[in-house]
Amino acid sequence: MDRIQEQPWTWSEEVWRGKVEHVRAGRSLKPTTWKNGARCAVALSFDSDHETNELRDGGKSIGRMSQGQYGNRKGVPRILEALAKHDAKATFFVPAVAALLYPDEQRRVVAEGHEIGIHGWIHELNSVLPYDTERDLMFRASDTLEKITGQRPVGLRTASWDFSPDTLRIQRELGLLYDSSLMADDDPYELLDRGEPTGIVELPVEWIRDDAVYFNMHRFSGLRPHTPPTAVYDIFHREFERAYEEGGLFLLTMHPHVTGYRSRIWILEKLLEDFAARGDVWVATHADIAAYVKENA
Amino acid sequence: MDRIQEQPWTWSEEVWRGKVEHVRAGRSLKPTTWKNGARCAVALSFDSDHETNELRDGGKSIGRMSQGQYGNRKGVPRILEALAKHDAKATFFVPAVAALLYPDEQRRVVAEGHEIGIHGWIHELNSVLPYDTERDLMFRASDTLEKITGQRPVGLRTASWDFSPDTLRIQRELGLLYDSSLMADDDPYELLDRGEPTGIVELPVEWIRDDAVYFNMHRFSGLRPHTPPTAVYDIFHREFERAYEEGGLFLLTMHPHVTGYRSRIWILEKLLEDFAARGDVWVATHADIAAYVKENA
Amino acid sequence: MDRIQEQPWTWSEEVWRGKVEHVRAGRSLKPTTWKNGARCAVALSFDSDHETNELRDGGKSIGRMSQGQYGNRKGVPRILEALAKHDAKATFFVPAVAALLYPDEQRRVVAEGHEIGIHGWIHELNSVLPYDTERDLMFRASDTLEKITGQRPVGLRTASWDFSPDTLRIQRELGLLYDSSLMADDDPYELLDRGEPTGIVELPVEWIRDDAVYFNMHRFSGLRPHTPPTAVYDIFHREFERAYEEGGLFLLTMHPHVTGYRSRIWILEKLLEDFAARGDVWVATHADIAAYVKENA
Amino acid sequence: MDRIQEQPWTWSEEVWRGKVEHVRAGRSLKPTTWKNGARCAVALSFDSDHETNELRDGGKSIGRMSQGQYGNRKGVPRILEALAKHDAKATFFVPAVAALLYPDEQRRVVAEGHEIGIHGWIHELNSVLPYDTERDLMFRASDTLEKITGQRPVGLRTASWDFSPDTLRIQRELGLLYDSSLMADDDPYELLDRGEPTGIVELPVEWIRDDAVYFNMHRFSGLRPHTPPTAVYDIFHREFERAYEEGGLFLLTMHPHVTGYRSRIWILEKLLEDFAARGDVWVATHADIAAYVKENA
Repeated sequence: MDRIQEQPWTWSEEVWRGKVEHVRAGRSLKPTTWKNGARCAVALSFDSDHETNELRDGGKSIGRMSQGQYGNRKGVPRILEALAKHDAKATFFVPAVAALLYPDEQRRVVAEGHEIGIHGWIHELNSVLPYDTERDLMFRASDTLEKITGQRPVGLRTASWDFSPDTLRIQRELGLLYDSSLMADDDPYELLDRGEPTGIVELPVEWIRDDAVYFNMHRFSGLRPHTPPTAVYDIFHREFERAYEEGGLFLLTMHPHVTGYRSRIWILEKLLEDFAARGDVWVATHADIAAYVKENA
Repeated sequence: MDRIQEQPWTWSEEVWRGKVEHVRAGRSLKPTTWKNGARCAVALSFDSDHETNELRDGGKSIGRMSQGQYGNRKGVPRILEALAKHDAKATFFVPAVAALLYPDEQRRVVAEGHEIGIHGWIHELNSVLPYDTERDLMFRASDTLEKITGQRPVGLRTASWDFSPDTLRIQRELGLLYDSSLMADDDPYELLDRGEPTGIVELPVEWIRDDAVYFNMHRFSGLRPHTPPTAVYDIFHREFERAYEEGGLFLLTMHPHVTGYRSRIWILEKLLEDFAARGDVWVATHADIAAYVKENA
Repeated sequence: MDRIQEQPWTWSEEVWRGKVEHVRAGRSLKPTTWKNGARCAVALSFDSDHETNELRDGGKSIGRMSQGQYGNRKGVPRILEALAKHDAKATFFVPAVAALLYPDEQRRVVAEGHEIGIHGWIHELNSVLPYDTERDLMFRASDTLEKITGQRPVGLRTASWDFSPDTLRIQRELGLLYDSSLMADDDPYELLDRGEPTGIVELPVEWIRDDAVYFNMHRFSGLRPHTPPTAVYDIFHREFERAYEEGGLFLLTMHPHVTGYRSRIWILEKLLEDFAARGDVWVATHADIAAYVKENA
Repeated sequence: MDRIQEQPWTWSEEVWRGKVEHVRAGRSLKPTTWKNGARCAVALSFDSDHETNELRDGGKSIGRMSQGQYGNRKGVPRILEALAKHDAKATFFVPAVAALLYPDEQRRVVAEGHEIGIHGWIHELNSVLPYDTERDLMFRASDTLEKITGQRPVGLRTASWDFSPDTLRIQRELGLLYDSSLMADDDPYELLDRGEPTGIVELPVEWIRDDAVYFNMHRFSGLRPHTPPTAVYDIFHREFERAYEEGGLFLLTMHPHVTGYRSRIWILEKLLEDFAARGDVWVATHADIAAYVKENA
């Protein structure tokens, strides 16, 4: 078969439909009202990657490794203090290796009422792995988190939101309640596996609602934190306000090694104040929100 | 012939003039006044690429595919509601594969009084295609849109504004009224084919007036949405205000999967309010504007 | 000689000093006062590259070619009107091929009292050329501009500010009054050729004072116009205000195909108002400023 | 051993722990109060790279070389004036080659009460060098600075913050008081060498507190100064304010050839006013701060 045959414009309808329908959004799980009559739900997540970001890339840069340690040393504590001040519960997605490096951090997170979810073994990209390897790493990651925290994770966020063709199958094998890696809606929906409803709740993410997008810096690539922090707050605030108006879900992804800094932590603090000021906002873990919509949508 | 011979600074005048004059702007089609005495015209376009952006690149990323579905699920409905609120008519450029994936969306768009224009088969880049392939895809795209909507498209926007050396020839064979992919003016003009007037109206685009330029995000390249939404509104607003002042055309390109989000849709809503506040602004489809300038310039 | 020998940290002092001293800033030519007692001088330049930006890259993109035509069709006229309104004289650096494509534009520029300077043959990068080729193109460019405008150019701005190891030698052979491509100072200085004073005035540029830096867009690279126009004005304004405070030179580089747009031309207009509001600012061509500092420094 | 064996997800715990623990943050050296009862400490650093940035890359661009000269000609003098106005003492990290090019600059810096620290030989990247070469360059750099300034440097900032696996060993051999290249905390800490306390003080940097991150421009890469200067000030100011609130250290990295411009120097000037306005802020050299925390933490 020559190369031109593989060009997308030569695909038969069966081919492109197959690609589109492999994993897709099914029915909306947006409830008419949220827990205790709240008008809007807020799901805050923190991906505690720490050193695994650099380890995943080979682990050669001592400088980037130190940025990872910052996440544990300053980032997570600042975030936990901000959450505690407003008695807000959140979800931390933690690669197994980061949990093994900082087991006390994970135990403190759980002790303060937050959830810990799966985030791969060492922040690996799933789409480069064969099924067996992805499955093995995901199961080992789940076992590791359970061993450290005493709680079996019920949800998964793929590292780098890199959802492979096998990820949904593995999530079903793990018996998960929810995924939080895809982007077909603002509000929760049910995942379809080649058209078949799976019962798995998708709590959708978006790069728009991710701190790393605006703040990432990489010395040897073109990534620079060009967006002013005030603009980042403005974007997140607009996402929240419209979610409130629509009675929907506002889900935000942050990272301890990105938002945990002195010039950025105010964004989280100010948002927590915004939620409180509204009065009828339900700030909860991903697990609680997924369970609620599964029952009440 | 050695390589140095092909360097641009060694070209004869015939060579560089030939390249410059292949497709060029001819006479201005800016009318002295717009329909019903309006001072200024506004052409809003929405490129409903949906999943074809990812399919065009191979269709391997389930995450990017879900972003495409967002365009259909949330983006287009939010846009249609905003337009309906102001009774504003617009143009949606839709790749044939996107139309086949979402035929109901296209029928709703047309039923609400909007125009649907050609946008390639699967968002392919024209400049990598031989003439026969580009021609075949463009004709099939036109047939597909007609079959779904009941209306034969009269205009074309090349995907990625990638206007090939053959595109104008194919547009003439299709008997189109207008193109909207080139950038030699702010106001409409007539396209010249190697110096010969074609009768085809160019409704010029510009990256400045394109939402994706400021908001695009690609995990594995350096593209990040660094421009604050308030700055994007400011740019579009300045383009509109000066068009109004000059009595010209304000043409804006948006994408459901880019502008359809909670933190961005206000840009479109606010612009629609700006148009209404001015009173004497004609907001119309590309087809209506092209037909008007062809007759009245 | 093995590869490690060529690493910069292995260079002898003679090697690195030779590289540093090849072309260097000599004595400052900042005068104690400017013409007619003005406190500050302003040199506005516009690089009228038009289609040569795309021709230089091979001339294959019809879309980018149309952006070039915009420079002639809308950019230059808007700029000339803004300058005329304030009776401000400026310098246009024009590649020979752009001048041959648009000779009437050049004649209008000169007729309105502005200067035209050399900007290469077809916007080629000098540093990839052997001496003979660079010399030949530069001389032919100079002859072409003289033939069209009736005036022999006295200054040169290298395309892309790409000053080759041979450029200074060629400038001396051309007997030029000034160069405007280097960045060792804010104020004019004399160029040194391996330590020897050349009599050639450098009117220094800086990327900070270049519109393209903030606004350039390239579909197939990561360049995007992420800086808000209001921030670009703020930067230019700060550069001007401090130059005024110091009694120095404010030199600004703009491009018709970058700044000539409806949402950007106000930056130039507002700066022209700022200059006028100060009262004692001398806005002049590069040639007039170079001649003045050469005599009065 | 096949390639898959080397993938990070296949590493044994010994492997990834070894990488993480090679160089790591030990006990915090944040004191309960700062010198003379100051509430907060400020360490300003200026990396005077000048032409070595371009030399390190091969030294072929005359334009970039002129930007380096700007650092000496305009950048350092403006910075020294701003510091003198507030009697603030700071640290300049200078590659040996830059010191040899501009020995008078270094002597003026020291004469005005500032510190000079090691910054490599020619701004080379350490992580590409074998141990012997890195060691030799670092010792020669130290000797060169001592010879020019009369003072033996006590601290080192790696060029490009590129801390190699051998850097800490060499710092110990040099008997340094402090390093300022790593990022595991906001406040000073002790460096661990494979778990062993070294007595070396880390004064942590961060890209967030580095001017080049926001302002760097490279014609032939995608780097552009997209962040508005007002936003850069806002970020630095927030970092300072929170450091003040926490009673910590605010360490800022600037470059004469980045911040020394008319449109940017106000950022430093305004920060110096902010420190003064607070009253109880100790602005000091890195050496003084490192010595203080080593004794008082």
